[in-house]
Amino acid sequence: MFKSLEWRAEGALRLLDQRKLPAQTLYLDYHSAEEVAHAIHDMVVRGAPAIGDSAAYGIAVEAFHFAGEDVHALRQRLAHADTILRASRPTAVNLFWALDKMAKVTQDPRWDNVAALQEALLQEAHTIAHEDALTCQQIGRYGAELVPEQATIIHHCNTGGLATMDYGTALGVIRTAHEQGKQVKVLVDETRPRLQGARLTAWELREYGIPHQVIADGASGHFMRRVGVDLCVVGADRIAANGDTANKIGTYNLAIAAKAHGVPFYVVAPLSTVDLATAHGDLIEIEERNAEEVTHIEGVLITPPQTAVGNPAFDVTPAEYITGIITEAGIIYPPFEQNLRQALASNIP
Amino acid sequence: MFKSLEWRAEGALRLLDQRKLPAQTLYLDYHSAEEVAHAIHDMVVRGAPAIGDSAAYGIAVEAFHFAGEDVHALRQRLAHADTILRASRPTAVNLFWALDKMAKVTQDPRWDNVAALQEALLQEAHTIAHEDALTCQQIGRYGAELVPEQATIIHHCNTGGLATMDYGTALGVIRTAHEQGKQVKVLVDETRPRLQGARLTAWELREYGIPHQVIADGASGHFMRRVGVDLCVVGADRIAANGDTANKIGTYNLAIAAKAHGVPFYVVAPLSTVDLATAHGDLIEIEERNAEEVTHIEGVLITPPQTAVGNPAFDVTPAEYITGIITEAGIIYPPFEQNLRQALASNIP
Repeated sequence: MFKSLEWRAEGALRLLDQRKLPAQTLYLDYHSAEEVAHAIHDMVVRGAPAIGDSAAYGIAVEAFHFAGEDVHALRQRLAHADTILRASRPTAVNLFWALDKMAKVTQDPRWDNVAALQEALLQEAHTIAHEDALTCQQIGRYGAELVPEQATIIHHCNTGGLATMDYGTALGVIRTAHEQGKQVKVLVDETRPRLQGARLTAWELREYGIPHQVIADGASGHFMRRVGVDLCVVGADRIAANGDTANKIGTYNLAIAAKAHGVPFYVVAPLSTVDLATAHGDLIEIEERNAEEVTHIEGVLITPPQTAVGNPAFDVTPAEYITGIITEAGIIYPPFEQNLRQALASNIP
Repeated sequence: MFKSLEWRAEGALRLLDQRKLPAQTLYLDYHSAEEVAHAIHDMVVRGAPAIGDSAAYGIAVEAFHFAGEDVHALRQRLAHADTILRASRPTAVNLFWALDKMAKVTQDPRWDNVAALQEALLQEAHTIAHEDALTCQQIGRYGAELVPEQATIIHHCNTGGLATMDYGTALGVIRTAHEQGKQVKVLVDETRPRLQGARLTAWELREYGIPHQVIADGASGHFMRRVGVDLCVVGADRIAANGDTANKIGTYNLAIAAKAHGVPFYVVAPLSTVDLATAHGDLIEIEERNAEEVTHIEGVLITPPQTAVGNPAFDVTPAEYITGIITEAGIIYPPFEQNLRQALASNIP
């Protein structure tokens, strides 16, 4: 089985290069925060939880290779690393959540020498990644209760073991239901422009032996109307305090289609994706990515040369389109404003 | 300027190979009905009106190359040609409409010798194609009245000069508004899986100098919500008696998103696209096309090998999502059942 990310004892973050899948299974090692920031920006690793884990290891690996005895100098260097990593991608809040956790360790006066701080940071990164995996399994158990026998499920983007430390969020729900023998079938939104569905989710579902068909993103309404769909599951990059959810571009259109057909639409994410500091979705910054993601596929130009493009990486699905948010603390239903706040309050360790 | 299709005096239908655009402008000549049927099936030519025109010329070219004096033998051969052409694609009703017109000429007892029938068939094909072009211009004039100054318009698939004899349907509306100086801007749905938007519509809009941006199909709701969209225009492959409209896959999702945002959604098509014999959209056969259209782009495999695919070429947008149908007889509003029937009755020459 693949590993989306893995710490190497020699002092490296090893990432499975998701830009090359499914054609090639290539692992790359990163030895500094700046390298990790580039990997996040270039989407070697993607998926909100995996981005958070990688950023944590980005701090840990930067500390690991610090030579010298001056813990203040190390803290300064880590503050710089933190800035670089925060600038790697703007939308997924797990990135900032994980960096906040790492910063707390960096600033903890208990770690008054370099070796102790290095060790504490590595342990914290391990904890973040380990909890991500455990959280996904718990999310899967809660979510699978919502999946009927022989369900047909539409899934957008990739939210599996590749998007997390292990197991996945929305795809974890599907995996658990499958492991429970529910004979589910997945309609995989290919997820233009970067084709995370066609490339990554189809690859993962094959690894797990879960029946699936890849469909064009624009076809979801047709399948709901003519074939029948039981539920939609998607991940999240940031959930605002009122439940509005930023996720991969195309999520909102899927949610609108689901509502029009009375198909339940679930967001699946760890509580670390909830950002109470953002009151509602219109306040979430949407990353605009390179035109080449739309104009080129596998390096081949598909449009006329220099065609102008609109390429928002994410969209925001307003809370009223969301049936429930499946988290490690259970399924959160509307009113989200109140129930998200409550879940977070009671979940703080 | 390009020509989507053109009769060649030496007895050939010349088609612009739309599979090769925008990288290459290649014209191919066809000398029999069977060749033309293959060209339609393989989507050398596509777009409901252009398919109708090509099928008419497919009959004409078959007659043109008939050697001999036996008009009964020619009629038999044309009946066979008709069968082959009807089987080329199942959804666009213009194909059957044009072949019905050609069959009427074939069976007309006035043409009692081979030369006369050959000539009558070629004239009928010319008439069908010529009227297609005139119809598009009339449609453009009606439709442009609905386009505000500085409108942002979402357009799906390709409905321009490539999809018709000349000028286009939905794209014709945009062209007319542009020619009237309305400073329109087009958001071009790329239209997976075959990318008619990214490849063909972007290419046409560049030819006409109309500002545009290509977007992923899943992004339309985002643009409606965050950027603002004034209207959507799409073509049609078949309009049922109640107004339900079959069009390129992805049209229905766009219509649902438009309705959710209160954005007017117009179907643009000649009256020959209306099929009163089909009571409603659920009765329209939806063509399922090759998996390779989804799994491969420009010959490159993007999914894991042998990935299962759902690839409906069309979807049906129920009438309640359609603001109006822009035709050469004016803009038809609900109740479509009554108003389509009336428009057709008063439009029969």
